[in-house]
Amino acid sequence: MSAGASVSLHELNAFDRQRFVSTLGAIYENSPWVAEAAAADRPYSSLSALHERMSGVVLKADESRKLTLLNAHPDLAGKAARAGTLTAESEAEQKDAGLDRLSEKEFFEFHRLNETYRKKFGFPFIICVRRHSKDSLFRQFDLRTKNDQAVERNAALKEVIRIAALRLNQRVAGVDQLNVNGRLSTHVLDAYSGRPAQGVALELHELSQVGSDHLIVAGVTNIDGRTDGPLISGRPVPIGGYELRFALGDYFRRSGIILPDPPFLDKVPVRFSIADPESHYHVPLLATPWSYSIYRGS
Amino acid sequence: MSAGASVSLHELNAFDRQRFVSTLGAIYENSPWVAEAAAADRPYSSLSALHERMSGVVLKADESRKLTLLNAHPDLAGKAARAGTLTAESEAEQKDAGLDRLSEKEFFEFHRLNETYRKKFGFPFIICVRRHSKDSLFRQFDLRTKNDQAVERNAALKEVIRIAALRLNQRVAGVDQLNVNGRLSTHVLDAYSGRPAQGVALELHELSQVGSDHLIVAGVTNIDGRTDGPLISGRPVPIGGYELRFALGDYFRRSGIILPDPPFLDKVPVRFSIADPESHYHVPLLATPWSYSIYRGS
Amino acid sequence: MSAGASVSLHELNAFDRQRFVSTLGAIYENSPWVAEAAAADRPYSSLSALHERMSGVVLKADESRKLTLLNAHPDLAGKAARAGTLTAESEAEQKDAGLDRLSEKEFFEFHRLNETYRKKFGFPFIICVRRHSKDSLFRQFDLRTKNDQAVERNAALKEVIRIAALRLNQRVAGVDQLNVNGRLSTHVLDAYSGRPAQGVALELHELSQVGSDHLIVAGVTNIDGRTDGPLISGRPVPIGGYELRFALGDYFRRSGIILPDPPFLDKVPVRFSIADPESHYHVPLLATPWSYSIYRGS
Amino acid sequence: MSAGASVSLHELNAFDRQRFVSTLGAIYENSPWVAEAAAADRPYSSLSALHERMSGVVLKADESRKLTLLNAHPDLAGKAARAGTLTAESEAEQKDAGLDRLSEKEFFEFHRLNETYRKKFGFPFIICVRRHSKDSLFRQFDLRTKNDQAVERNAALKEVIRIAALRLNQRVAGVDQLNVNGRLSTHVLDAYSGRPAQGVALELHELSQVGSDHLIVAGVTNIDGRTDGPLISGRPVPIGGYELRFALGDYFRRSGIILPDPPFLDKVPVRFSIADPESHYHVPLLATPWSYSIYRGS
Repeated sequence: MSAGASVSLHELNAFDRQRFVSTLGAIYENSPWVAEAAAADRPYSSLSALHERMSGVVLKADESRKLTLLNAHPDLAGKAARAGTLTAESEAEQKDAGLDRLSEKEFFEFHRLNETYRKKFGFPFIICVRRHSKDSLFRQFDLRTKNDQAVERNAALKEVIRIAALRLNQRVAGVDQLNVNGRLSTHVLDAYSGRPAQGVALELHELSQVGSDHLIVAGVTNIDGRTDGPLISGRPVPIGGYELRFALGDYFRRSGIILPDPPFLDKVPVRFSIADPESHYHVPLLATPWSYSIYRGS
Repeated sequence: MSAGASVSLHELNAFDRQRFVSTLGAIYENSPWVAEAAAADRPYSSLSALHERMSGVVLKADESRKLTLLNAHPDLAGKAARAGTLTAESEAEQKDAGLDRLSEKEFFEFHRLNETYRKKFGFPFIICVRRHSKDSLFRQFDLRTKNDQAVERNAALKEVIRIAALRLNQRVAGVDQLNVNGRLSTHVLDAYSGRPAQGVALELHELSQVGSDHLIVAGVTNIDGRTDGPLISGRPVPIGGYELRFALGDYFRRSGIILPDPPFLDKVPVRFSIADPESHYHVPLLATPWSYSIYRGS
Repeated sequence: MSAGASVSLHELNAFDRQRFVSTLGAIYENSPWVAEAAAADRPYSSLSALHERMSGVVLKADESRKLTLLNAHPDLAGKAARAGTLTAESEAEQKDAGLDRLSEKEFFEFHRLNETYRKKFGFPFIICVRRHSKDSLFRQFDLRTKNDQAVERNAALKEVIRIAALRLNQRVAGVDQLNVNGRLSTHVLDAYSGRPAQGVALELHELSQVGSDHLIVAGVTNIDGRTDGPLISGRPVPIGGYELRFALGDYFRRSGIILPDPPFLDKVPVRFSIADPESHYHVPLLATPWSYSIYRGS
Repeated sequence: MSAGASVSLHELNAFDRQRFVSTLGAIYENSPWVAEAAAADRPYSSLSALHERMSGVVLKADESRKLTLLNAHPDLAGKAARAGTLTAESEAEQKDAGLDRLSEKEFFEFHRLNETYRKKFGFPFIICVRRHSKDSLFRQFDLRTKNDQAVERNAALKEVIRIAALRLNQRVAGVDQLNVNGRLSTHVLDAYSGRPAQGVALELHELSQVGSDHLIVAGVTNIDGRTDGPLISGRPVPIGGYELRFALGDYFRRSGIILPDPPFLDKVPVRFSIADPESHYHVPLLATPWSYSIYRGS
């Protein structure tokens, strides 16, 4: 069964032990023993129950087994990634975080950080990359390398379980039972005309202090002043800095309003940060040609 | 008498003809005949009356004299500037607009534009540089080179008179009688605590699409939430794009408010353009850790 | 079949002629001939198609029949209402608009207006009362009585058709195909804490200049900062003046914020008017203890 | 010397003892001994120094003298007021607070409260009435009657000194050295057109729960969007509830904007309370035909 395919909880409950383990063996990186231990307690009434059981297996394992689990993980942006020998899951996750597009300098910086970390703790730096921007990854590297052994071992296991939750959520079809995803959305209101602003071009950029900013998504507001779908959804919203850019001047000019040249407001940048990847961030813009408000809405 | 010194209208009215002309001879570039013509009509009851008389002399001159006046002006960012042979007034004005800090590429671009313009119209491109950012200068070059001869000759004379108004306003001491200056100011209100936001670090940048952005002024808000003086004043506010950057995250963190890490709002950029250099632009920020409003105030 | 029961379009299409007419005979007040004429053209593919056909019958009728139709309507808040001899439909509509709770003075004022109108035009004043507040009814009386005969006859027929659309929409089950309903909703955002404001008590009042204000609905915001249902929905939002009152001081005090005594903001009144009964009016409040914004949202 | 006339500090320092005492004898109600004690320490370098000395005389007096001072005050809205036998100062202060316009019911309520208070404490209820609305006076009566003897005696003396500060500030000409006054102002910004809103009619009402609301001042905004003077100034801003009412609909209609009928926003009420009478409350309105913001500004 390929990494992309998904099964229902119902099917999982009915699988024979071997098929259950082969289906969920990769939830914990290179560690099918977690799925094996969980197979016996079927049926599971919910995805949460299954996740809780599997993470319980990990947390109750003895220290040497925990260490083995941690060491079953690849380096972040490491040689395995370059050599193409990652598991399908790790490859997708690292690629998603842009770790396959590192500059030579960034690659060596990650290498250096990995070495320092591994030397101090005896296992690779593990982090649920989907919850972080590149800047946030560097920052976590920095912060966590300062931890002591016991604190950091717990931190690493917590990340292992976060990775597993996301993999499980993706692997098992159905409603989003695990609350592992967040959402980022926007809405443009035209306070000049008292209606949703339709046709406002906008862009969402990820800001970076270590690398360069990059465009995540571009769109245009619909008749309700919203983009047709959320800007980010179906995944955690990576911790990091963002900028929404609204082409407000073009919108009002097209509305037939006579604006000064250049208009007082043209491209409106709204800069904000995400700290809680599993939350809904709604960032509406309420605007006239001469004023605007933004806020964290709901 | 040096370019910097200033006289009162009262003194000007009392000067002998020669001293009047030597004092105001440079108001119109290399054209003391304008001051000469105006000397006879003294006394002037106001600076406006004097300015109106001098500009009237120019507008009523015959075409060949007007052309001579236009040709008495140097190229914008031209060889004279490089060679240091500008009049004191032109040198100060061009320097103020950053035309002494052009890159090699920009210098040649100006040179090319000057040649094209001069070839078409038979006189140099004249513009009241203090009213424009570098981007706006390039844009005006582009727009005006498309004019026909008659329209452009009027446009050039209008700029000559604008330059004269600013020089006159600076040369003659007293209240700002000529309404040639604008103002840009800001104000930060803390809607979380219901009081002016004191201690907010802020920067004003000029944005450029042809060159690079540059910092105009940095400051910190005082107990009234304002900077101690306006961000720009005592001169026209150059037509162009600007960005105010407010260190809002630092302010709220210092206020003892517990913010997420990273905070939802940290550096807040407010991007706007100036179209009317002689106006007062007040751009206040009303903020909480989760929202802000900006508007053109008064 | 009672006035309250509803049928599906499918059933209507299948009814025999007599049952069709008895079901829809009251859509046009005391005028089953409209349904009779429409029965022949079945089946109808949509409620809109049926409504268009029935209103077409009315508009194409000769003048004397139109006049008969107009005269088949009762006086607004008239003697028939007092005597309890209205059709079930008219009774429900007039009651809904508060016309059964008139003061003696208002009753005589309506009586006087009815007499004046009828004397001028030869038929009773007809209006789709569900689209109006009491103040708006008085105003319409006043405005329409000034019309000339031809204009007013058209105005009256337009109202007859509006009444029919609402009756049809209520009578025939299914989705709201006729777009005859509007909606009024609110939302409270706490910009102090960056989240929806839960537990804000609020009231919606209808304002009246001819009578007294009255409470339409009271509620409390839920975890999403909204009321559990819209404030007004499933009907036109009556044209008129409204005031939303938000108990903002109580909310912030309960949040543990130390407020001045008395708090700067306590009961926040938001006064607005509805002009378009078939629209969605969303009126959110974005507030801190020291500031608030309201706007027509979507 | 009449109550209204004022002297300079310089003059006061130069007066003979008798004239000094006759000038400041009424600063403390019917208690010229305070001025007598302060006369010896002249000259005073500032009004603050004089106020501090006089209040020091009061605070250092023995208990029986303090009690005599308290008893030298009239009842609030009492029989003396009705009989016209108040000191000029007390009469002006009580009149200013509207205590000369009480209904029969309010008069008897004050009478009852005075009796209860005096019976408990042995001296009349004293309060600096200029700092309170009528509602706030009733509330203070209620709260302070619950105090114990020692706490209340201090509270009463504090009020005596507040009254003295206001009288002194009014009696002695010059700058407002005593910081006893507050200010209430507004400002209307038109975010539709990006300029101050000129010509907006507005009213300030004092709200009352015990009596009826009353109009304090009405005005129209000038070219800068402000009223020509503050709404309240040159005195403390009475603690209490207020409503500003802005005729926003009329303003936008006059601006030539086509509005719905009725307009979404017409009379805009802004309700707020004052808790700190010596502060500056600036309450601006930023509006479009479809939205507005208010906040405590500066």
